[in-house]
Amino acid sequence: MIVKLLLDRKREGEELAPEEIRELVAAYTRGEVPDYQMAAFAMAVCCRGMTDAETLALTTAMRDSGDCLSWDDLPQPSADKHSTGGVGDKLSLVIQPLAAACGLAVPSLTGRGLGLTGGTADKMESIPGYVAGLSLADYRKVVASCGCSLTVQTGEIAPADKKLYALRDVTGTVPSIPLIVASILSKKLAEGAGTLVFDVKCGAGAFMKTRPEAAALAKALVAGARGAGRKSMAIVTAMDEPLGFTVGNALEVDESIDVLKGSGGRIPQDVVDLSVEFAARMVALAREMPMDEARTLCRERLTDGSAWTRFAEMVRLHGGDLKAFEGRRRVEGGDVLSAGGGFVASIDAQKVAQAAFELGAGRAQSTDSIDPEAGVRLLVTRGDRVSAGQPVAKLHAPMRPERLEVASRLVQDAVVVSADAPAPKALVLEVVE
Amino acid sequence: MIVKLLLDRKREGEELAPEEIRELVAAYTRGEVPDYQMAAFAMAVCCRGMTDAETLALTTAMRDSGDCLSWDDLPQPSADKHSTGGVGDKLSLVIQPLAAACGLAVPSLTGRGLGLTGGTADKMESIPGYVAGLSLADYRKVVASCGCSLTVQTGEIAPADKKLYALRDVTGTVPSIPLIVASILSKKLAEGAGTLVFDVKCGAGAFMKTRPEAAALAKALVAGARGAGRKSMAIVTAMDEPLGFTVGNALEVDESIDVLKGSGGRIPQDVVDLSVEFAARMVALAREMPMDEARTLCRERLTDGSAWTRFAEMVRLHGGDLKAFEGRRRVEGGDVLSAGGGFVASIDAQKVAQAAFELGAGRAQSTDSIDPEAGVRLLVTRGDRVSAGQPVAKLHAPMRPERLEVASRLVQDAVVVSADAPAPKALVLEVVE
Repeated sequence: MIVKLLLDRKREGEELAPEEIRELVAAYTRGEVPDYQMAAFAMAVCCRGMTDAETLALTTAMRDSGDCLSWDDLPQPSADKHSTGGVGDKLSLVIQPLAAACGLAVPSLTGRGLGLTGGTADKMESIPGYVAGLSLADYRKVVASCGCSLTVQTGEIAPADKKLYALRDVTGTVPSIPLIVASILSKKLAEGAGTLVFDVKCGAGAFMKTRPEAAALAKALVAGARGAGRKSMAIVTAMDEPLGFTVGNALEVDESIDVLKGSGGRIPQDVVDLSVEFAARMVALAREMPMDEARTLCRERLTDGSAWTRFAEMVRLHGGDLKAFEGRRRVEGGDVLSAGGGFVASIDAQKVAQAAFELGAGRAQSTDSIDPEAGVRLLVTRGDRVSAGQPVAKLHAPMRPERLEVASRLVQDAVVVSADAPAPKALVLEVVE
Repeated sequence: MIVKLLLDRKREGEELAPEEIRELVAAYTRGEVPDYQMAAFAMAVCCRGMTDAETLALTTAMRDSGDCLSWDDLPQPSADKHSTGGVGDKLSLVIQPLAAACGLAVPSLTGRGLGLTGGTADKMESIPGYVAGLSLADYRKVVASCGCSLTVQTGEIAPADKKLYALRDVTGTVPSIPLIVASILSKKLAEGAGTLVFDVKCGAGAFMKTRPEAAALAKALVAGARGAGRKSMAIVTAMDEPLGFTVGNALEVDESIDVLKGSGGRIPQDVVDLSVEFAARMVALAREMPMDEARTLCRERLTDGSAWTRFAEMVRLHGGDLKAFEGRRRVEGGDVLSAGGGFVASIDAQKVAQAAFELGAGRAQSTDSIDPEAGVRLLVTRGDRVSAGQPVAKLHAPMRPERLEVASRLVQDAVVVSADAPAPKALVLEVVE
């Protein structure tokens, strides 16, 4: 393989053979292809695209760059859900134990967040004692024991993706559907679940801003997962408003616990509805069950407390102390008041995320530390009636009280109030089966 | 400047501001922008192109990365000719001293060849003692003294181009008109000649294979040179057959000397005609003389021996020993015989170059050494009548006799003989003024 000739062909929009892509990725992982050649490759893919066959070859080559797990030794079928990420997206915390309670093994390898808010691993680690970074052996034990585990991705899974992702991040080669698909799928395939359900977020608070982009990514993910022999479907969901009422690591765990217990604070209907929908999709595919039956089963398992039991057991097996977490008082930094009166017409997810970041809920660089207690708890949702001066959000910033003012302004800007009640809005935009 | 944001914008086909491009090139030259980001930039430019303003900004930024010379202290106007390179292209050896004999200063910074055949510097260095790598001070002295100098490009001229060119070579980002223009022009502008004439070769033996590509490059070079305040024009010339009869370093110097002296071996009419045409273009632009007058002047200076005198003086000032060179017998490795009888319909330049390379006339890597004596001397040209078994070429390979057989087969394949005389073919395809 002469890399510069491959680059010449890709630059001209030619289709590369699967074995050429496989060799390129293998040599890059071994450090034999330098970053500058891989950066040129990534840019050529951004500009010229990839065929389905090329995307699949890239995906499987990246999958095979590290360990590939299998869950065939477990009695129950395995499934996982992946989200492209949104503001306040704590769905995994509800869906994973819920699907486990419905008879699935849910081996979820997840990440730490880089950007405005924390990732699933960051959220779980706001529980005192919770260890997200398990060894593969311990991770297997947790999944076998309680049916689910929210574990951080280890270096042994798809190292090619880790390397290429870091390169794409600094070479302007992030927004390419084939590269995004290969990045997401290589890890999810290596993780070994037999069923993969994708939540592709779409809107101002998501990576995919438009419906056509989001639908194209959803289709490519499903095609890729099927091409690699997995059962798969995807849902394009709206991400204009934050999901639920909370944005911030501990705050989102609080809210997820409320949803799992069905009590506590104000229950976010969007989180409940999407959790049941995604868990039911996983159950329907993995257990080959009609969707209406799967939905009924999931609603039951959520209300009867069995999803909560799974969650509590998973936290215990990861070393987490739920009692200490639930008993702790969240330090409040003050209320954000509504500028006007009327109906909440919209809540800008991006601005709320920016506010949470200002308060310490995210990290700009992978070496930054997160304040687990920091974030925004909204008190209203779209369609709520508010009066001028009424509190619409509470801010939490125990480590950064000096950022409360700028965050307050951001949240106040985010909550748009108008005289008329807004028309209802669907969360599920498109189902890709 | 955040490089990844520039890359994002270039990837999407946006036009970058001149100062952004200038800052990028300056930071790259200082080593502050890593190769992987520059490789992504080059690939984005290959795929998305550049506007004229962007190309000019890239060109001038690369020019300004090193020393910029000026020849304003000389009494005569300065001019140079640049060729995109072809097989047997020894025109500089004739044109530069010819233009000097017509009252110009011709400060030609030239290169060593990487590929099938040697560059102008390699050719000149086949003369015993000739030092192509002069210091800038010595180079100035030679130009001031005899009006011309064939000097190898030093590290002080356009170092950004040197760095970027090496990167483009290994990242599949060579064939992009804006990048080619910036590479050629940055050096030629830094060299400081007031008039720049371009020979853009077009055909099977050239980098530009098609007329539209070659014309586009010619126009872009002229536009760029004028944008930077120089007088300029270009000619697209045919490069299907080798230029002249010889391909190989010492052999091409032999032939150039024959042309300059008007005696010796068979005089190649194509080399004479193109040399007069290009020298006349330089004289006409630089001295603001009508073209017919300039052509007459050039023909006179070629036939009256003054161009030869300039050449001999230049060689002497570079330390070369012409007597030793001319007195040396070229070791012949054998004749190539015509396979059939009839007329020479065509001579494939690429195959003849490949044969010369096999015999040792080129280098595959910059660290390879060249055999100055190696090469091919054709005995026929297009349109000549030949009989089967008649010698059509002589091979020279003192260091690699074992490659004579494969080279012989290549040359035999290259010389196509047919029953009918071929139609005459123009060398000048297009004039860009």
